[in-house]
Amino acid sequence: MSSKALDYENLNENVKKCQYAVRGELYLRASELQKEGKKIIFTNVGNPHALGQKPLTFPRQVIALCQAPFLLDDPNVGLIFPADAIARAKQFLGMTSGGLGAYSDSRGIPGVRKEVAEFIERRDGYPSDPELIFLTDGASKGVMQILNSIIRGPSDGILVPVPQYPLYSASIQLLGGSLVPYYLEETANWGLDINDLRQSVAQARYKGITVRAMVIINPGNPTGQCLSVANLKQIIQFCHQENLVLLGDEVYQQNIYQDERPFISARKVLLDMGLPLSKEVQLVSFHTVSKGYWGECGQRGGYFEMTNIPPKAVEEIYKVASISLSPNVPGQIFMGLMVNPPKPGDISYDQYVRESKGILESLRKRAHMMTDGFNSCRNVVCNFTEGAMYSFPQIRLPPKAIETANKLGKAPDVLYCLRLLEATGISTVPGSGFGQKEGVFHLRTTILPAEEDMPAIMESFKKFNDEFMEKYEDHKGYSRM
Amino acid sequence: MSSKALDYENLNENVKKCQYAVRGELYLRASELQKEGKKIIFTNVGNPHALGQKPLTFPRQVIALCQAPFLLDDPNVGLIFPADAIARAKQFLGMTSGGLGAYSDSRGIPGVRKEVAEFIERRDGYPSDPELIFLTDGASKGVMQILNSIIRGPSDGILVPVPQYPLYSASIQLLGGSLVPYYLEETANWGLDINDLRQSVAQARYKGITVRAMVIINPGNPTGQCLSVANLKQIIQFCHQENLVLLGDEVYQQNIYQDERPFISARKVLLDMGLPLSKEVQLVSFHTVSKGYWGECGQRGGYFEMTNIPPKAVEEIYKVASISLSPNVPGQIFMGLMVNPPKPGDISYDQYVRESKGILESLRKRAHMMTDGFNSCRNVVCNFTEGAMYSFPQIRLPPKAIETANKLGKAPDVLYCLRLLEATGISTVPGSGFGQKEGVFHLRTTILPAEEDMPAIMESFKKFNDEFMEKYEDHKGYSRM
Repeated sequence: MSSKALDYENLNENVKKCQYAVRGELYLRASELQKEGKKIIFTNVGNPHALGQKPLTFPRQVIALCQAPFLLDDPNVGLIFPADAIARAKQFLGMTSGGLGAYSDSRGIPGVRKEVAEFIERRDGYPSDPELIFLTDGASKGVMQILNSIIRGPSDGILVPVPQYPLYSASIQLLGGSLVPYYLEETANWGLDINDLRQSVAQARYKGITVRAMVIINPGNPTGQCLSVANLKQIIQFCHQENLVLLGDEVYQQNIYQDERPFISARKVLLDMGLPLSKEVQLVSFHTVSKGYWGECGQRGGYFEMTNIPPKAVEEIYKVASISLSPNVPGQIFMGLMVNPPKPGDISYDQYVRESKGILESLRKRAHMMTDGFNSCRNVVCNFTEGAMYSFPQIRLPPKAIETANKLGKAPDVLYCLRLLEATGISTVPGSGFGQKEGVFHLRTTILPAEEDMPAIMESFKKFNDEFMEKYEDHKGYSRM
Repeated sequence: MSSKALDYENLNENVKKCQYAVRGELYLRASELQKEGKKIIFTNVGNPHALGQKPLTFPRQVIALCQAPFLLDDPNVGLIFPADAIARAKQFLGMTSGGLGAYSDSRGIPGVRKEVAEFIERRDGYPSDPELIFLTDGASKGVMQILNSIIRGPSDGILVPVPQYPLYSASIQLLGGSLVPYYLEETANWGLDINDLRQSVAQARYKGITVRAMVIINPGNPTGQCLSVANLKQIIQFCHQENLVLLGDEVYQQNIYQDERPFISARKVLLDMGLPLSKEVQLVSFHTVSKGYWGECGQRGGYFEMTNIPPKAVEEIYKVASISLSPNVPGQIFMGLMVNPPKPGDISYDQYVRESKGILESLRKRAHMMTDGFNSCRNVVCNFTEGAMYSFPQIRLPPKAIETANKLGKAPDVLYCLRLLEATGISTVPGSGFGQKEGVFHLRTTILPAEEDMPAIMESFKKFNDEFMEKYEDHKGYSRM
């Protein structure tokens, strides 16, 4: 039997080479253990509803009515649904031709794109053009569409922060481009050093790589830091000098857990900088319904907004989007609801505010509980989660643990995370999946377990970590760094 | 100002080169005219709900309840929803961890994949393994995932029927592979000639292309033909001899409008052929909730099933799927409902059967109305739409029309379709978007306009066509072929 096109050895090499640690070895092992009956706490992926977060009521009422429009004629509908949800459902259905069962335009429903543009204008203080907003099946799909337009081959480089969310490394590999890393500085609260950035570009050029775009994740994933206005200005200046498209992954813009650095969009900073930059720097910004206090991951709704991208290029991106016909329509409705939620005076306003505040305040508490918990553990140090949904503690692994991992052919942090999983059921992602400096080890966990479960989880982590360190520390020679 | 990464001239060439006529020049012009207030009949894309088809009631009830699970505790829920919809919603929610707002496994919800496997077993008479079924955001996304695994570079060829659905040409171009055409024979009711297939492969090899996979679309798009068992056997034999993966686009399997050739899956024919083929031919089959009598295009639900693909390759496909986290969960629920609809004895069974039969019977009538209508027109010949949702008449354009088109720098069928659009509002897709033999011209239209609108639409077409032919025919020399 000769070998076949879909045998492993004949697959597209880029498919084989790409790695996506968030659902990699650790996740697969966790799934196995779950099948065997072990209780697993899936903190590998930012998936709030899977850990018990309840959906916001109003958007679910609206989407239920949109899915079952015949209810709108039912005399009993008012017994179950509030009047503002009914009105909003009618409004959305009026924006579609054929309801949720019809493909929309490949860029998304015009009416929803208009709502997104109005949201951006309210947020940034500058008008936004619905024709430059494309709705997507979640932010990841949008990122892939844009990277696909940019990457022409292995000598095209994309600057990506390290540690990074592996969507970027995986997509760049899949599309056959080159990832150009720039390091975030852990000791400076995961800040970005513009000199380091310059060096990264110089090194890439030396290797014959044309750097064409720069990714920022703000708030950071997995690092949780919020970029300051000063830092964003430097980045935009740098993109202008180096002629880079700026890709702003801003999916965690609602997830802020401190007050010193509120979220500010790359677009606002760019437009505030005025001419010539405001007309010259190309920027694509990404957002989603999966994060924030919505956490509607399973609905797959997102958008990207383009700034300073010429119409002919927008047309090409539109053409490629049209091959997949349209993003899922219910996800588009969620996006419309997220950017245009109930207003003061609406029947559902109080409930909406109560629910969303409750989630956000609890996330803020959990960010503290987790960071404090990690920092109370032996050989663990952790920056505070300023934003996003993750904690990214550094684990100072004793040399013996590193040796053991090497013998087993595993990265040391993979060994640590596997042992943690097996001992406690806590499913995390090793830092090596995100990138880290040589000889330094981390893990990423979400801050999403329920507030009431958090103390027990942190205690169980501490107990495991104590035992792990006890086992591998050389009590004579090894000192805590 | 120097040129930038997202300027047209710097985009990925594969992005620029790919074409997707279903939403191409004609669609864009139709959208413009609609904005200007013209009434447009969008028959360019198989989008039934956009042309007035009502969604089936039961699945919409179930999905509404899944979206609003708090309704399940509402004492009034029974006033609006039937008990079997409530039970089914509870069953689906029990299959998820976190409801519709949580990412599922990247292959889809295990419980739904099991329902799909059971459906395939009932349909084909052979067991199917849920581990080899991946749920997707519609069939197109599944096709792209598989082509991405197969195509390594420009010397990898994919056999595609011509005329074809341009998803294939566009995706192959985007992924940097080579399309190897094989022609369907219009005079033999769009049948497939195995000798022509052999010739196509030989020609491709001569050009240095390794043919690695073969696409069949059954029932055909845009051609509407249903493949016979004998034809399917030949195809499978051919794939075995030539070591090709067979990609079976079977999204129209419920859309059959004649009784001589009912739908039979490539998988059933393959397994019926026994050893060694049944264990050696690699097959990936695609399905969707967008077609059939469901027509739930906007929900973006689909699946692919793999046969004889080794576990190591399946793992790689799983890994790449995981980069996008999960297909949209509501679309997965629709897929579960489609493959496991109400059963005799269920409260909603009669309504479900009445609604689905009504749609299918009306589509059958419309298939006849449209074919007969086209065949009554001057210089138009059209094979009967045996299946799928399209009519693909040949338009015998007079030489003067071809000359005019050439002068305008347009393909002759593009000119014809543009004039048709401007005169009647009927938005079709020129045959050149699907591929056709040199010097032969077609258009594709869906058979989806409402039954009651069909006579007026066909009359309006006939009137336009008469005038067009009148204008361009040379009454002295030109004879109808």
